[in-house]
Amino acid sequence: MTIQTIPDYTLIREKLDQATGILNELGVDCWLTFVRETSAVLDPVLPFIYGHDVTWQSAFILTRSGRRIAILGRYDAENVHRLGAYDTVLTYDAAFSAPLHQALAELAPQQIALNYSTNNSHADGLTYGLYLLLHEYLRDTPYPARFTSAEHIVTALRSRKTPAEVERIKAAIDTTFDIYRRAFALIQVGTTERAIGDFMHAEVDARGLETSWERAACPAVNSGPDTPVGHAGPTDMRVAPGHLVHFDFGVKQNEYCSDIQRVAYVLRPGEEAAPEPVQRGFDTVVRAIQAAVAAMKPGVTGREVDAVARKVITDAGYPEFKYATGHHLGRACHDGGGVLGPLWERYGDTPNYPLEVGHVYTVEPGLFVEGYGYMGLEEDVLVTENGTIFLGAPQTELILVR
Amino acid sequence: MTIQTIPDYTLIREKLDQATGILNELGVDCWLTFVRETSAVLDPVLPFIYGHDVTWQSAFILTRSGRRIAILGRYDAENVHRLGAYDTVLTYDAAFSAPLHQALAELAPQQIALNYSTNNSHADGLTYGLYLLLHEYLRDTPYPARFTSAEHIVTALRSRKTPAEVERIKAAIDTTFDIYRRAFALIQVGTTERAIGDFMHAEVDARGLETSWERAACPAVNSGPDTPVGHAGPTDMRVAPGHLVHFDFGVKQNEYCSDIQRVAYVLRPGEEAAPEPVQRGFDTVVRAIQAAVAAMKPGVTGREVDAVARKVITDAGYPEFKYATGHHLGRACHDGGGVLGPLWERYGDTPNYPLEVGHVYTVEPGLFVEGYGYMGLEEDVLVTENGTIFLGAPQTELILVR
Repeated sequence: MTIQTIPDYTLIREKLDQATGILNELGVDCWLTFVRETSAVLDPVLPFIYGHDVTWQSAFILTRSGRRIAILGRYDAENVHRLGAYDTVLTYDAAFSAPLHQALAELAPQQIALNYSTNNSHADGLTYGLYLLLHEYLRDTPYPARFTSAEHIVTALRSRKTPAEVERIKAAIDTTFDIYRRAFALIQVGTTERAIGDFMHAEVDARGLETSWERAACPAVNSGPDTPVGHAGPTDMRVAPGHLVHFDFGVKQNEYCSDIQRVAYVLRPGEEAAPEPVQRGFDTVVRAIQAAVAAMKPGVTGREVDAVARKVITDAGYPEFKYATGHHLGRACHDGGGVLGPLWERYGDTPNYPLEVGHVYTVEPGLFVEGYGYMGLEEDVLVTENGTIFLGAPQTELILVR
Repeated sequence: MTIQTIPDYTLIREKLDQATGILNELGVDCWLTFVRETSAVLDPVLPFIYGHDVTWQSAFILTRSGRRIAILGRYDAENVHRLGAYDTVLTYDAAFSAPLHQALAELAPQQIALNYSTNNSHADGLTYGLYLLLHEYLRDTPYPARFTSAEHIVTALRSRKTPAEVERIKAAIDTTFDIYRRAFALIQVGTTERAIGDFMHAEVDARGLETSWERAACPAVNSGPDTPVGHAGPTDMRVAPGHLVHFDFGVKQNEYCSDIQRVAYVLRPGEEAAPEPVQRGFDTVVRAIQAAVAAMKPGVTGREVDAVARKVITDAGYPEFKYATGHHLGRACHDGGGVLGPLWERYGDTPNYPLEVGHVYTVEPGLFVEGYGYMGLEEDVLVTENGTIFLGAPQTELILVR
């Protein structure tokens, strides 16, 4: 899908500087991002190191020594000149392989890291067809034998947020809270999930923003025990007394995302507070979040954090939730790198990744309160040297709707 | 990047029916689209056969006999039920490999077509990491030996437009013409390229639409001989007497794109018409387009059409243009499949693909008029059984600005 924003060159230059440091830290010679026609398939790392679409086969080569070489088709080259962050720009008309050979001959890299990973989808932007093509173009050279995965480079680059990136995420969270406040005022008996969802879409549109994930499922609005919970949008289910009304919502603002879950309870006639099972469910989720966040510091692995949150839920007698406690948040809502999750097949090795300073995660344990509905909260947090901080005020009291 | 639109289930069901026919035509047993976390990397075929993002590893399996099996993580499954176009939905919590084995054991396919292609980027949505993962999950089965490229399936599905798809492209073209009309009225001596580009962005935004390709470069506005031509946005160059003002622009409306180039000439004091070199350049481009379109019919290859347009330009004494005469147009501006282009390395085998009924192409030869600027026109056309028709009125007279 086509890039719909004007790139921020300052941010790109900052991430390119960060990339050089990461190559040195990991001891990798040379990192090659190979792309073509990015309106068809966009390597998710490209917005960090370039910021524009490309049409023809193109390569962005970064080295440990700080070299930055871009190879582009003639008509794509003007953008890289404007960015001004690559020391060498090679262009071509008919054959990409010629400048590629030229660049590699000059650099003579001992390793060439490529964007593929079985673990991290954000480090897996190289398609199989492009991988085959690279082999074909370099078949009589020593380079295919030097290909290696750039998984750890991309993971570090994407997950270690610069202060400018954290500011953008914070701004998206602020907007999310603002829209939530307006949406909560709309909750009343008889309102449909869909009407609330439509209102929130209108708020997003009025601000010229996008939803943090697929519009059809953002927000999720789940009222009561009978509505389907998951990555799907609101239904025609009506809010009724005794319903938990659960939201999952975020906005993408200035290219960075928020991801926040909130929950309200609709009092039944005569009730002044939520009934015990609802309150206990809420308190359990809040405790699970607080325990997880307290456990989060640099060096701890994602699966250790997950185990802490999961244990609070199961110790309280609820079934364990069937998803990870949290994920990175950034330019994508499910941003790349380690997951705060269990060692399930589908997470690959990512629960073993350690937390680092500058990581931004969601924390989102949940449980089901029989007869009332889904109880889930989600907070966005930043890992710092001194522990982990909330990037927005967490929900610690159940919202009551009369 | 995240899907930002509510999917049209009618269109998806239509394309799924078309897919079954294509599998029969090509004699392929089974086509498997394997994806995960599509907000990171979106296989460009997914909007045609599903229409939602997925979070966990997922597979969409279509067979020649008309079976449609979807394998999804628990929280993604609600969407496929709503779509209602898959006969079997298998869900999982921890391990994708189990339902994958189950589905393949039941189907026992002799071929499994996967979305990779060195030629067509739109048929190349399978990442290398996912390819490795599929091998790993199926390592003790006969299936990896049966993997084959789905290139021709995806190319056919994407490039043979249904009437509903053609209608959407037409609507996008109509909007493009409307915005062009307003923009032309703005051209006057002293106006910057950027001011015209900003006006066109405002027109796009006011209609709640997106640009057809990367916003930073759509529209391209090129005034006079000294501005850089290519896939880059407008500059602070000012319109001056004796300039050719060239535009390249399109909108994405209801998920389908237009792509139209137009050109105007700014008269110098005392001029009543464009000078001879300008008029001759314009007439040559118009003739090249008309010759190409006349040559376009089912069965003709893209490179044959390209040669016709290219020859008109070079026969008139201009250097040949350094790009293809045209490309498919559809859900993406550079839509997938064959190209109306020469057999250059970077186009792979795609210039050899034959034109078919229902294909929609751009036709966009160009040339440079020394001292005046870039002369390029681009029209969007539909291949029918009886020849090729313009989907919008082509420009046949040079726009003159006083």
